[in-house]
Amino acid sequence: MKKLKRSGRLVDMTNFLLKHPNQLIPLHRFSERYGAARSSISEDLGIVKEIFESEQMGYLTTVAGVSGGVRYEPAVSAREAKTLVESLCRRLEEPDRLLPGGYLYMMDVLGEPGWMNEIGRLFAGIYRGQNIDVVMTMATKGIPLAYAVAAYLDVPICIARRDHRVTEGSVVSINYVSGSNKRVQTMSLARRSIPEGSDVLIVDDFMKGGGTARGMSELLTEVNAHLVGIAVLVEARHSERLIDEYISLVRLDEVNEQEKQIKAGPGNYTNHLQY
Amino acid sequence: MKKLKRSGRLVDMTNFLLKHPNQLIPLHRFSERYGAARSSISEDLGIVKEIFESEQMGYLTTVAGVSGGVRYEPAVSAREAKTLVESLCRRLEEPDRLLPGGYLYMMDVLGEPGWMNEIGRLFAGIYRGQNIDVVMTMATKGIPLAYAVAAYLDVPICIARRDHRVTEGSVVSINYVSGSNKRVQTMSLARRSIPEGSDVLIVDDFMKGGGTARGMSELLTEVNAHLVGIAVLVEARHSERLIDEYISLVRLDEVNEQEKQIKAGPGNYTNHLQY
Repeated sequence: MKKLKRSGRLVDMTNFLLKHPNQLIPLHRFSERYGAARSSISEDLGIVKEIFESEQMGYLTTVAGVSGGVRYEPAVSAREAKTLVESLCRRLEEPDRLLPGGYLYMMDVLGEPGWMNEIGRLFAGIYRGQNIDVVMTMATKGIPLAYAVAAYLDVPICIARRDHRVTEGSVVSINYVSGSNKRVQTMSLARRSIPEGSDVLIVDDFMKGGGTARGMSELLTEVNAHLVGIAVLVEARHSERLIDEYISLVRLDEVNEQEKQIKAGPGNYTNHLQY
Repeated sequence: MKKLKRSGRLVDMTNFLLKHPNQLIPLHRFSERYGAARSSISEDLGIVKEIFESEQMGYLTTVAGVSGGVRYEPAVSAREAKTLVESLCRRLEEPDRLLPGGYLYMMDVLGEPGWMNEIGRLFAGIYRGQNIDVVMTMATKGIPLAYAVAAYLDVPICIARRDHRVTEGSVVSINYVSGSNKRVQTMSLARRSIPEGSDVLIVDDFMKGGGTARGMSELLTEVNAHLVGIAVLVEARHSERLIDEYISLVRLDEVNEQEKQIKAGPGNYTNHLQY
């Protein structure tokens, strides 16, 4: 890269840090990249940090020492999270989402990169510093959300499935009982999709009884991986929950099919915000 | 936002443009945001443009006039695309990807946000200016790729499925013949996931005979939507292809199960690069 002035460096640095979240970038990488002194780079980073912080985009952490550097850790501030979750609740309360059986149509929200990126950054901030290796989800609808979280954490995603497709190689399967309708179902995971010993975050779009999440955590045990946490976008009220610990953004308090009324409020995430 | 100096504006502007790809941002939005004169904003954008272009991140297009503004259109340069596709080919040639039946295990690549973001930007650049409203894919493995393309195009994704799950509302289904094994299968799409008249880009991870892609395009006809193009990450060689027009990044030239040999080369995307 040709020698850049401060203004050019700031544009390039911002782009570089946003593209490499949660990676420790050694300072010499920047000084070599721009042909600039380390002291200039430190000043540049001070400016970047000020803006990232005033815009509440997360943390710009500097690690001192020989193996040190700078790391951008995406997060969403409590205030911004509140606004985001409130607008999500209002969207989910739209009466035409109601489907037979008290389900909600959510694919429009789940398929919108703008929303998923914000929510992904929020979850990435909540699980910041927990050394997650893999984000796991269940096919199909939760995949965009899981991907968005994984992108901010800078880790791969892996997908458990209710069928067993031929193109995955050796597969581990378990039977599990759905928490809401008590039916026995099967879920499968390609063995090579999670290396042994991985620390795994489960991400899903919807939780009722928690049977799917518990099934996924049992799959993790089968492949000798370790569950770090369970993050769900929307939890429905349910009398007996099969899992204890999870973080939800939205809780459905009421889904009334007769009167076409949905009431949604913030989930338990407010207890887990760091930022 | 408090009044910012040029250095702060550049960091914030870069972040803002990257977060809103393919959206026309009126210049007054920036001048109000920063309490800066329009002439200063224009100078700022000149600096941003220079870096975006020298780093080959895509186009920063300025639209003049009252309803004008600036738009960041992500793309990948021909040189960078070549490097990206070549390293993708080398990865796909790893012999331990071979699965029974001549299939390749690709989920590790498809689940890595780093790769998907680059490939997403490449496809977004290829279909730049084509007014795409929705990206459509088939569950399951292609979803992260489709999401990445959609995020750069700033449009939602919708997912066709081989099953028919209850939580989607009114569904349109078709039967289709798989191009490779001639089996009749069913695919379904939630009617409300694609508004009538939408211009749709189909994105998939793998294409052999093209039956799935043709099925998806038939689904589009059923919901009165319009096919803009078909983008596939990897195409396998096949004697009779059921579709004519598609853009592929990688072509599998040889998959030899006996000798555990895979040969991959660039697909036809090189004819479609604009950048």
